[in-house]
Amino acid sequence: MNSPLRIAIAGLGTVGGGTLKVLLDNADALESRSGRKLRVTAVAERAFGTIEALGGRLDGIKVYDDALALADDPEVDVIVELIGGSGGIAKTLVETAIAKGKHVVTANKAMLAHHGTAMGRAAEANGVTLGYEAAVAGGIPIIKAMREGLAANRISRVYGILNGTCNYILTEMRETGREFDDVLAEAQKLGYAEADPSFDVEGIDAAHKVSILTSVAFGCEIDFDAVSVEGIRHISPLDIEFAEELGYRIKLLGVASLTDHGIEQRVTPCMVPKTTAISSVEGVFNAVVVEGDFIDTTMFYGRGAGEGPTASAVVSDLVDIARGRTVPTFGIPATALTALQPATMDRHVGAYYVRLMVVDRPGVFADVAAILRDNKVSMESVIQRGRAPGNTVPVVLSLHDTEEAALKRSLESIANLDAVVEPPRVIRIEHL
Amino acid sequence: MNSPLRIAIAGLGTVGGGTLKVLLDNADALESRSGRKLRVTAVAERAFGTIEALGGRLDGIKVYDDALALADDPEVDVIVELIGGSGGIAKTLVETAIAKGKHVVTANKAMLAHHGTAMGRAAEANGVTLGYEAAVAGGIPIIKAMREGLAANRISRVYGILNGTCNYILTEMRETGREFDDVLAEAQKLGYAEADPSFDVEGIDAAHKVSILTSVAFGCEIDFDAVSVEGIRHISPLDIEFAEELGYRIKLLGVASLTDHGIEQRVTPCMVPKTTAISSVEGVFNAVVVEGDFIDTTMFYGRGAGEGPTASAVVSDLVDIARGRTVPTFGIPATALTALQPATMDRHVGAYYVRLMVVDRPGVFADVAAILRDNKVSMESVIQRGRAPGNTVPVVLSLHDTEEAALKRSLESIANLDAVVEPPRVIRIEHL
Repeated sequence: MNSPLRIAIAGLGTVGGGTLKVLLDNADALESRSGRKLRVTAVAERAFGTIEALGGRLDGIKVYDDALALADDPEVDVIVELIGGSGGIAKTLVETAIAKGKHVVTANKAMLAHHGTAMGRAAEANGVTLGYEAAVAGGIPIIKAMREGLAANRISRVYGILNGTCNYILTEMRETGREFDDVLAEAQKLGYAEADPSFDVEGIDAAHKVSILTSVAFGCEIDFDAVSVEGIRHISPLDIEFAEELGYRIKLLGVASLTDHGIEQRVTPCMVPKTTAISSVEGVFNAVVVEGDFIDTTMFYGRGAGEGPTASAVVSDLVDIARGRTVPTFGIPATALTALQPATMDRHVGAYYVRLMVVDRPGVFADVAAILRDNKVSMESVIQRGRAPGNTVPVVLSLHDTEEAALKRSLESIANLDAVVEPPRVIRIEHL
Repeated sequence: MNSPLRIAIAGLGTVGGGTLKVLLDNADALESRSGRKLRVTAVAERAFGTIEALGGRLDGIKVYDDALALADDPEVDVIVELIGGSGGIAKTLVETAIAKGKHVVTANKAMLAHHGTAMGRAAEANGVTLGYEAAVAGGIPIIKAMREGLAANRISRVYGILNGTCNYILTEMRETGREFDDVLAEAQKLGYAEADPSFDVEGIDAAHKVSILTSVAFGCEIDFDAVSVEGIRHISPLDIEFAEELGYRIKLLGVASLTDHGIEQRVTPCMVPKTTAISSVEGVFNAVVVEGDFIDTTMFYGRGAGEGPTASAVVSDLVDIARGRTVPTFGIPATALTALQPATMDRHVGAYYVRLMVVDRPGVFADVAAILRDNKVSMESVIQRGRAPGNTVPVVLSLHDTEEAALKRSLESIANLDAVVEPPRVIRIEHL
């Protein structure tokens, strides 16, 4: 039997505590799968209450106040970074650990989105592993699937429901007909949303994950700034209702695709046909679809966050390290990653749902139709429910595939019509 | 750069030809992901027409008539066995290759179901890899997911739609209301079913896969004979219609689960709630659900057969071998696999759908109800649609959780009633 793999955990919050629990509860099975013991030799945590709460679980384990000290501990082979934050101590710890020849496992998508390429290069130059299965879609082993399981394929597109908070909110809104703010408040009470929910509901968290998936899918450097991001704050019960009527569900999708104009990365609310598997992914669940030249379509579904699933992902990286299984950080050697050529969203071609709030009077629709015609945008359907002469009513347009630039021009003109009393609401329609 | 991995392909049928295509078409990407070239140095194929059809793809590659010769070729590091059949030349080739220190990759589930444990032990004793990602669920990297991606978990149950032919037939039957035989004939014409469809429609193929998944999930020896198997030949449009009415879809599920009485392995048509993700897996698609103590539930979905997906799985094993990534054949060292303790199906507790064809006359239902009461089997609902005094009508019972032995006793008595004119049709109801 080989010597134990000596593990240090930096940050004993939900995921750190869960990681400790997996390593202790399933120690025998892990040893059998790894060919050696996985032993936690040190932890770093500043909150005394957290340390106290773990009680006997920390017996025989060194407890540091300063996470950076872990990088200097000669009895540590791998550091699990669960401190969080794109910079600060998390970044310093990872960089120092790699420089000192220690493996790193992290769940920190924000840090990878900003510094992942450099960190991957440093890790490979130093002959250590930078594992990050836990950073994308929690319990779903999507990084391993893409880097190894689907390695035979040229990937053309990867997309998914990457943020459980948003999917929970959208599911609840649809099922109960309630407003966004109301459901968000409830999600916060239930612990499904943070006190400051901006990162989740504005799509930033999903965008971090998209930028990482893009690098693995297409062998390019991570380019978070090139992700086009739109959150779900403006989604209304009215839009959800119209989506149902048109045969769609609204999901916040992260999409990375290879186009004729470069690589498109975006996070946007999308209407997906109710007949697709991804439309049935509800609540806090995540799902990732990968399209490749030989596998066609494959989907991976599971819990994207939470103590158990995220800890499971962290520990799977540890088992790989223990077994000596290595893979280039982003699928191909980090030195070979090319700069990402971003596709401008103006060139994006897709179908759209547009909801206008208009004063119900003769001639309004003729004006709208003329603007669309002038911009060569063609309509698939129009819904105007009920009549209310002189009052404001919703008019919903479903548009055939059109270039985003043409859509934007049309909407500017439409917004300027006297009878249009609110900015048009636009949601992409995805033909998956 | 390392020396090339030298590959021999035994059998150039659909999957063999596809494997050759992946290795040639995506050679550059594969080299980048593997850190070395994947080079086909030899093939074995007896059908001259097949060889001729591949034409230029075989340039510079040795072509053997006798597959066994590949095991003696010093310019071969790994043999891809795509001959098929549980014994015969496929088995001899794999055993010989392993004995001579060559890695093996195979898509042969029948062979593994019968000889997998011994082959895994031989491979590990000889320090070579026995890769079989392609043997279960084609393009879905489920073996890698279970052995590595979910390695942190104790798995409690794994189940799935493992046979695309059956799922295609059941989907078509539901969508068109046609009879089994009719849809099967069409599936044969379309190439979705073999000329002799028994292995598929009788559940044998799915049972092979279940026996392999069981070993990986629970760390036990493969025990194909312990799989309880029932096919889909007896599923009628009437049952599909009643299933819809009760809120279910009928799927042929392969299930491996850890119970209080041992490990249960079965392949049976099941009614699954229409609200579950797996119920929406249609046509030739496969899906596998894995339940573990930390990940909770995760599902993997994709194409389970066909040239591209299966070849993708074969090549993913080759990339692992090229990179030197190793994992025990069935997740833990083959020497540590324990004998499987099978749970008897009589102890199985579950819900059931029972369809009786009875002569519509007073008192029949009272007799049925009395038999169920006497066997302590309790009913959730009864459907008798329409009335046709003196004629035969279907009566559908939906039963609460009951032990299978009690159900069997009840059904024997019910079948003996004068008014019951056909053997009762039983389909499991799965609460997933």
